[in-house]
Amino acid sequence: MPIVTIKMLSGRTDEQKRELVEKVTTAVSESAHAPKERIHVIIEEMKPTDYGVGGIRKSDE
Amino acid sequence: MPIVTIKMLSGRTDEQKRELVEKVTTAVSESAHAPKERIHVIIEEMKPTDYGVGGIRKSDE
Amino acid sequence: MPIVTIKMLSGRTDEQKRELVEKVTTAVSESAHAPKERIHVIIEEMKPTDYGVGGIRKSDE
Amino acid sequence: MPIVTIKMLSGRTDEQKRELVEKVTTAVSESAHAPKERIHVIIEEMKPTDYGVGGIRKSDE
Amino acid sequence: MPIVTIKMLSGRTDEQKRELVEKVTTAVSESAHAPKERIHVIIEEMKPTDYGVGGIRKSDE
Amino acid sequence: MPIVTIKMLSGRTDEQKRELVEKVTTAVSESAHAPKERIHVIIEEMKPTDYGVGGIRKSDE
Repeated sequence: MPIVTIKMLSGRTDEQKRELVEKVTTAVSESAHAPKERIHVIIEEMKPTDYGVGGIRKSDE
Repeated sequence: MPIVTIKMLSGRTDEQKRELVEKVTTAVSESAHAPKERIHVIIEEMKPTDYGVGGIRKSDE
Repeated sequence: MPIVTIKMLSGRTDEQKRELVEKVTTAVSESAHAPKERIHVIIEEMKPTDYGVGGIRKSDE
Repeated sequence: MPIVTIKMLSGRTDEQKRELVEKVTTAVSESAHAPKERIHVIIEEMKPTDYGVGGIRKSDE
Repeated sequence: MPIVTIKMLSGRTDEQKRELVEKVTTAVSESAHAPKERIHVIIEEMKPTDYGVGGIRKSDE
Repeated sequence: MPIVTIKMLSGRTDEQKRELVEKVTTAVSESAHAPKERIHVIIEEMKPTDYGVGGIRKSDE
């Protein structure tokens, strides 16, 4: 029942997202000994205007 | 002060969302003995390209 | 596939938590027309030292 | 390594978001004695149709 | 109605947490023009065994 | 800057958690073309009393 959420900047291609869901599922399955069909992966994209490190947004760098 | 977040695939109608917020609030209020006006409900829709189970995204099924 | 997270102050009894998971699942199932067996509910308890409204923590009220 | 997520109703201007990331970073840095460059701030906007308090969505008030 | 969640490594004192909730609330209130009494702040502490950057957990550094 | 959160039932060994953080970081790095040192992984353990599927908590199964 692992539920994995990946927050990342928007801009990945559809193919990258497909690969991300597939590979992360495999990694979790192998490490946590959980059957793949119970693993959920959610991608949450962040806009550069809505995410900052060190007080500076990505859109302002 | 319960804060409820519901992640689900996009595609629900406005009426379904209204009902969802209303009924979940009632359910939490009754079970946790919290006054309704303190219960927050947030709906977060996931796109089929951004959510997968078993390593396969909903958009790829 | 709805995934519901409920953040609330710690202190509920085991029976209240059982009822909470059961009733919220029913509410989501009815409103969003999702089969019950696909609905996940997670309770996340907050300590009074780790939660505040209006700038004042529950433990300081 | 603090990771701060701010969920709020949509509608803030770009300038307000910039200020929000900047000021929250400073507040966390000073209170938690964490270097600014390690502090991440994420703004997640909620639509009035997807957020309710007391069982009533903002879009229905 | 801003809801702020701060994930950080465990180990802060109670006084640091109090200050964190207070200062972050003020920062959000000023930047987003939201009344303080509507701002919720949640601190979520992470254990060094449960958090890693670059593939290495804090407990393994 | 991907931030990955993994919610799973408690009970994994320390070695499993170490492997989980390492392998998930590699999977995200390869799929999203993000440098490893920018990838954060957080494990959040759920108690069987606080998690249910289909309206039934793990502790009640």
